[in-house]
Amino acid sequence: MIIKILSIAPEEFDSFLKTPLIKRNVESSNLKLKIIDMRDYVKGSFRKVDDSPYGGGVGMILRCEPVINALKANMTDNSHVIIMDPIGKRFDQKKAHEFSKKEELIIICGHFEGFDARIYDYADEIISVGDYILRGGELPSMIVCEATMRLVDGSMKKESIIEESFENGILEYPRYTRPSEFEGKKVPEVLLSGNRNKIIEWRKEEAEKLTEKYRPDLLKKTDS
Amino acid sequence: MIIKILSIAPEEFDSFLKTPLIKRNVESSNLKLKIIDMRDYVKGSFRKVDDSPYGGGVGMILRCEPVINALKANMTDNSHVIIMDPIGKRFDQKKAHEFSKKEELIIICGHFEGFDARIYDYADEIISVGDYILRGGELPSMIVCEATMRLVDGSMKKESIIEESFENGILEYPRYTRPSEFEGKKVPEVLLSGNRNKIIEWRKEEAEKLTEKYRPDLLKKTDS
Repeated sequence: MIIKILSIAPEEFDSFLKTPLIKRNVESSNLKLKIIDMRDYVKGSFRKVDDSPYGGGVGMILRCEPVINALKANMTDNSHVIIMDPIGKRFDQKKAHEFSKKEELIIICGHFEGFDARIYDYADEIISVGDYILRGGELPSMIVCEATMRLVDGSMKKESIIEESFENGILEYPRYTRPSEFEGKKVPEVLLSGNRNKIIEWRKEEAEKLTEKYRPDLLKKTDS
Repeated sequence: MIIKILSIAPEEFDSFLKTPLIKRNVESSNLKLKIIDMRDYVKGSFRKVDDSPYGGGVGMILRCEPVINALKANMTDNSHVIIMDPIGKRFDQKKAHEFSKKEELIIICGHFEGFDARIYDYADEIISVGDYILRGGELPSMIVCEATMRLVDGSMKKESIIEESFENGILEYPRYTRPSEFEGKKVPEVLLSGNRNKIIEWRKEEAEKLTEKYRPDLLKKTDS
């Protein structure tokens, strides 16, 4: 799989490219990740990517030219093109699984006050990571990239993924590690019992309790 | 305002600290941002922050000691302590406004398979940026930090924020910039008309249409 991220701030990905998940996977060639600077696709020495909005208003708008030129120069017949924008469909674990099966994913990051609206016509999907406003699509694109890359075959241990929150429609059970007592707070007895069946049962019950407490909406989804 | 982020992977914040919003605000002293390495709060030369789960299972769990020691060494009477975890309450623009009014925000980032469950007792709130699984709380903590810092007085132009998506319960109107025609796609006539009232009216209508198309749930919230 290859993921290409189109951004006007490629330097914001420097630390991300060094994180173990990305580095290991990219080096082992299961996956490729390419950060593309949209400024390289603008004519003229100023590499101007933004301009003020027609009709007035504050802020600068990302122009069609750099985005669409960069997209056309980098897309193939198998590219699935997404735009990161808070108006989009909410990204979730199901979407991450869907993306992890694509041959090529292109993620376009907005910046400033947003995109020229004509840019949306070029995307297969508009994707949002949540209802909050950021400076640009850089952090959201890293979220999509990290969540997706973890799920690509060979990237992570399968057992690790199966037990995670959202994978079975409920949250993950609570976990404890040493010491067995910390500031008066003890690890539940059953986890120290060595009784495998009881532990499995307890974890199932606790995962349900936790979901009921924090995310009752997930249980409703499973019911329907 | 001061934001302190507790992480076992502080190097993952390097690029984030250099982004214009963070750099400018931190230098102008409106805001302070401190990344704290939880490994510095473990005794012993190995600085071991994780251990295997009681009762068996895959993966490693973040231990109480580094997290709680780091927290206690850095918190004050005015600290609002949040844990980044997908089980938590969903972070949104309203929450960002709430956080932007705090004197001190401490954000604890998970990693590996999650936290020792006893750690949750020390937080004021558990916060999630969305229903997806990542390697750790690093990217989510940057999301919270960026969305919050933008809203702190003096950080951004007020007019910029007022017009943004979610601020008025609907999405932002579509924007266009030069050229007036790109690959046969024209900018709506009204935006070139110079008629201020018509532009305001058109933008209001288009914002509603966009919300109806992409996020009808937002309109329902406003109705109720």
